[in-house]
Amino acid sequence: MTVEPTIEDAPVVDTTRSPHARLRPVGVAAVRVHDRFWSPRLDRNRDETIPTQYQQCQSTGALTNFRRAGGLVDGEPFHGLYFSDSDVYKWVEAASWSLAGRPDAELDRTLDETIALFAAAQDDDGYLNTYFSVDRVAERWTDLAVRHEMYCIGHLTQAAIAHARTTGKRTLLDVALRACEHVFARFTPDQVPGTCGHPCLEMALVELYRTTRDGRWLRLATWQLDSRGRGVLNGSEYLLDHAPLREQTYVTGHAVRALYLYAAAADVVLETGDEQLRAVVDRLWRDLAQHKTAVTGGVGARWDGEAFGDPYELPDRAYNETCAAIAAIFFAWRLLLLTGDGQYRDAIETALYNGVLPGLALSGTEFFYQNPLADAGRHRRKPWFTCACCPPNVARLLASLPGYLYTTSDDGLWVHLYVGSDADVHLADGTHARVEVRTALPWDGEVEIELTPDEPTEFTLFLPRPGWAGDVTVRLGEDVIEPDTAQGYLTLRRTWRAGDRVRLRFALPTRLIAAHPRVASTHFRVALTRGPLVYCVEQVDHPDVDVADIRLTGTERWTPTFTEALGGVVALTADARAVVPDDGPLYRPYEPGAVPTQPATVTAIPYYAWANREPGPMRVFLPVLPR
Amino acid sequence: MTVEPTIEDAPVVDTTRSPHARLRPVGVAAVRVHDRFWSPRLDRNRDETIPTQYQQCQSTGALTNFRRAGGLVDGEPFHGLYFSDSDVYKWVEAASWSLAGRPDAELDRTLDETIALFAAAQDDDGYLNTYFSVDRVAERWTDLAVRHEMYCIGHLTQAAIAHARTTGKRTLLDVALRACEHVFARFTPDQVPGTCGHPCLEMALVELYRTTRDGRWLRLATWQLDSRGRGVLNGSEYLLDHAPLREQTYVTGHAVRALYLYAAAADVVLETGDEQLRAVVDRLWRDLAQHKTAVTGGVGARWDGEAFGDPYELPDRAYNETCAAIAAIFFAWRLLLLTGDGQYRDAIETALYNGVLPGLALSGTEFFYQNPLADAGRHRRKPWFTCACCPPNVARLLASLPGYLYTTSDDGLWVHLYVGSDADVHLADGTHARVEVRTALPWDGEVEIELTPDEPTEFTLFLPRPGWAGDVTVRLGEDVIEPDTAQGYLTLRRTWRAGDRVRLRFALPTRLIAAHPRVASTHFRVALTRGPLVYCVEQVDHPDVDVADIRLTGTERWTPTFTEALGGVVALTADARAVVPDDGPLYRPYEPGAVPTQPATVTAIPYYAWANREPGPMRVFLPVLPR
Repeated sequence: MTVEPTIEDAPVVDTTRSPHARLRPVGVAAVRVHDRFWSPRLDRNRDETIPTQYQQCQSTGALTNFRRAGGLVDGEPFHGLYFSDSDVYKWVEAASWSLAGRPDAELDRTLDETIALFAAAQDDDGYLNTYFSVDRVAERWTDLAVRHEMYCIGHLTQAAIAHARTTGKRTLLDVALRACEHVFARFTPDQVPGTCGHPCLEMALVELYRTTRDGRWLRLATWQLDSRGRGVLNGSEYLLDHAPLREQTYVTGHAVRALYLYAAAADVVLETGDEQLRAVVDRLWRDLAQHKTAVTGGVGARWDGEAFGDPYELPDRAYNETCAAIAAIFFAWRLLLLTGDGQYRDAIETALYNGVLPGLALSGTEFFYQNPLADAGRHRRKPWFTCACCPPNVARLLASLPGYLYTTSDDGLWVHLYVGSDADVHLADGTHARVEVRTALPWDGEVEIELTPDEPTEFTLFLPRPGWAGDVTVRLGEDVIEPDTAQGYLTLRRTWRAGDRVRLRFALPTRLIAAHPRVASTHFRVALTRGPLVYCVEQVDHPDVDVADIRLTGTERWTPTFTEALGGVVALTADARAVVPDDGPLYRPYEPGAVPTQPATVTAIPYYAWANREPGPMRVFLPVLPR
Repeated sequence: MTVEPTIEDAPVVDTTRSPHARLRPVGVAAVRVHDRFWSPRLDRNRDETIPTQYQQCQSTGALTNFRRAGGLVDGEPFHGLYFSDSDVYKWVEAASWSLAGRPDAELDRTLDETIALFAAAQDDDGYLNTYFSVDRVAERWTDLAVRHEMYCIGHLTQAAIAHARTTGKRTLLDVALRACEHVFARFTPDQVPGTCGHPCLEMALVELYRTTRDGRWLRLATWQLDSRGRGVLNGSEYLLDHAPLREQTYVTGHAVRALYLYAAAADVVLETGDEQLRAVVDRLWRDLAQHKTAVTGGVGARWDGEAFGDPYELPDRAYNETCAAIAAIFFAWRLLLLTGDGQYRDAIETALYNGVLPGLALSGTEFFYQNPLADAGRHRRKPWFTCACCPPNVARLLASLPGYLYTTSDDGLWVHLYVGSDADVHLADGTHARVEVRTALPWDGEVEIELTPDEPTEFTLFLPRPGWAGDVTVRLGEDVIEPDTAQGYLTLRRTWRAGDRVRLRFALPTRLIAAHPRVASTHFRVALTRGPLVYCVEQVDHPDVDVADIRLTGTERWTPTFTEALGGVVALTADARAVVPDDGPLYRPYEPGAVPTQPATVTAIPYYAWANREPGPMRVFLPVLPR
């Protein structure tokens, strides 16, 4: 059948025609970011990260694998891990999003060349996985639990959709369609159960359905979800095969896999309204948000297996894989599109600033795989990894970030993240409007939103009232107004005219955040936050005190100071206390009452910026002295 | 050369002729345990654990591997991991120690048969490793870092020494000697650097030197220690190859490997007095004891790599491999033999009761590999593991435990662990004496020591004054005396006559133990201890309160009550508090002051006994409310 890619404004998750979505996308190509905080990051992503990652795909042999599979080189062994194809696919996706609204002939050509390699490597029957080409053809589809074949096709498909949406070309989409046809034929819905040890294809298939309107892809995605709990993956709980997905009641297993799976379930709900799956994603979200998310939005506490821990298992040395924070954003974004509920927006914002950004060095070319909340100084970012999932995942998320800033709905226009930008949107009645956000967040709490509808139009403007916000002053023009708040959004309904401005002033106090009393590891400890940012202390800022000795009283006054260091951050400083260095034994009888402390000046920096200076201990949670 | 095994009283670490040892062993065969706490455990080890483990060695194919290597079976594949030989060797060691002073014709015959399999599997050149027999001969000695070949020969040698010492037979010792000759020829001291990714052989070689007085084995052991830091193991810090051992300054890497290595270094010091190595073991011990040991004596905090963490990284969900606690005992025992310093004794006692015993179910037939300090109810013991290092390690330690109770020295007789038992000892002047300890520890603090020298003899009786002991009342006959304490031992010097009795009364208060202020994870939390035992709370004892909600005030009165449950334990009960169940968000603004609590009766049981009833949450550290 003939399909035409949706190009228009290059949505990331295209709920334009999703019957159960409350929100409809404003795509990457419709948004221009001009933000003090984000523009340098998005520019660096395009100018440094994406080119460097292409070189990594070259030097690791991941690209050579396609040449080898396509018969373009002889005598090469396979390079890397069995899912190394996905590194390249994620890079293609990142590069494609980066083209949105910003032509780059050279990158476009590199993409065409790379896609030609994929096409060359693809078998006549549509199968594509370079690990199983040449000398492992007989092993294809023999180990769904481990071998990531569908996972790789998932990333291929996501890359293809991004490429089609941002370039209008269907070269890669054709490759992906052939691969998905192969999967459909091999694991046909209602006939042959099939699902992958590492979810990814499910989400991609729903998006392929949205792109092509071919209902087979939605059926296949749903079939893959419903193939779980049938032993295809050996019943492994770690692989989310311990029960039918519709009966799963708690977040478990490998964090990225779990969240990709849940995100796909939300995708299906957006399309079908499936009430049973809706209940599943709701309860899994609650378990995630209430029991298994770090204060940074990082998820997947365990180093063993990159897995979720038990409820309230939120240790200092959390694993918090960068990819898992990204996966949590994928899940939350779909639930936000479904509901317009600000709890999901809050989670996205927290994870973006504090769960994903720390995964990236300020240079844009080194990465964290794990994001612990405390460290002794040996955890440092690296340019690449043997298992290189995180770096291109960060790149693709940042490249598509403009697509997460705005949506529309039947009743209006939504801003989701306060990022300096403007966008062209089409309201429900078809009216075109331009919306611009001006802000110095996360450093300063002033936000201005200017609306320019082509003609005066009545609609609701939905503006985030983040969970971190205390008082907010809202002005419409010069008038202070008191709009309603619904589900975490300020709702301003009126007939908007060109030039209308809303100005918000959020207070940005430094806050001490405590965890639920059942979180044992942070008992009587707090994290510092300001606005959407979680802070940490680094040894390099404390020449006279070991950061492990820092104690807060809870009454100190924190002074925010903008500094050009670390790419420009607001640092927080206070006169706090430090335990007098103690050379006593490791264990001793408990003595009630205050431990001896002395004055100490404490400086905190945003957690995302840690480990960009000289190595040393770091802590997010700081002990509080009892009053 | 001809060597004769030392049999006499079957010492575990035979420092009888070690010039730098302060203490000399009283062997396993010289001691008879008749202790309310320990006798059932040692009996169960002999009657349940050791026979069951032999069946495991049968059913896993570990024994078949030897038949296969010896050409006694055809067409069998290799079974298990590449170090599965060591499972069998450790079983042989355990079975051998269990024969000490207690003949068992059937077990003796099973040992003979098993040893015959080893002999059959051994190559003409002395090489013995069934993984590298038959189809992997060409791979021998090609990967010292990973393949555990020397490690297996180490366990073979330790088993051989135990077997020789307890049976007087040299069948297995001959096998081990041939294997060690092979290693000596292949990695000759001062010629070919060689050391194993998993230490073990080093300790065994020193013991082989002690057994045979052949100086080559001490040279080879020292050479293996000094082969580290030379790149043989790729410079890996995880494998302790990051620096010459003599320059290593901190405890690091895989916990069991590290501690086996350090124990071997202590062994060399015992024989040579090497001052440089002595400084190394001293500083590594300090780092271990002051920064990297759980309150239970468990070590190796990290699940990733079964490794040591950074200083003060002592989380609730510690890995604390059962084998690592055993390895810590090996290290500490050698330092105790070197010095007579009670800090090592204290560490042995803590690790034995709280680091090793929890690794064993009360049934004696299920095991923990990891020993976390908190759990949500899913961590349960198993009969065996794919990597089955821990179960036979527990078995061999318990079988040899009588050898850890007493020593002698130039100046006297030492009791190290208060375990109901009697022993035949030879004092420095050759006088034979019988010593008997009667006690109901760890439940009750009364201890009676009765001495029966063949003739009145002047010597010092050294009796532990444990770190956990507060006041102790000492009676000699009916007289209260006040003996000196030196390095954690009460020292009673006099001319002892047959029938002299010393009676001790230790107070056994319930204590709240806090960790050093730099241990972030236990800030404002305490562990309960009583005598040598660390306690924990289990959900099964708290039908009305979630154990995560328990809060102590630090002023509650703990009532010890002996119960027949759990094989007979003293449980501790107190009227404490519990946080009122909180359905608030996972993170919230910190509020100073007390959280709402309500009364709660709390019951604690010894940590070693956890997970023997219905599954449920468990915690060692409990939060304390500030006063």
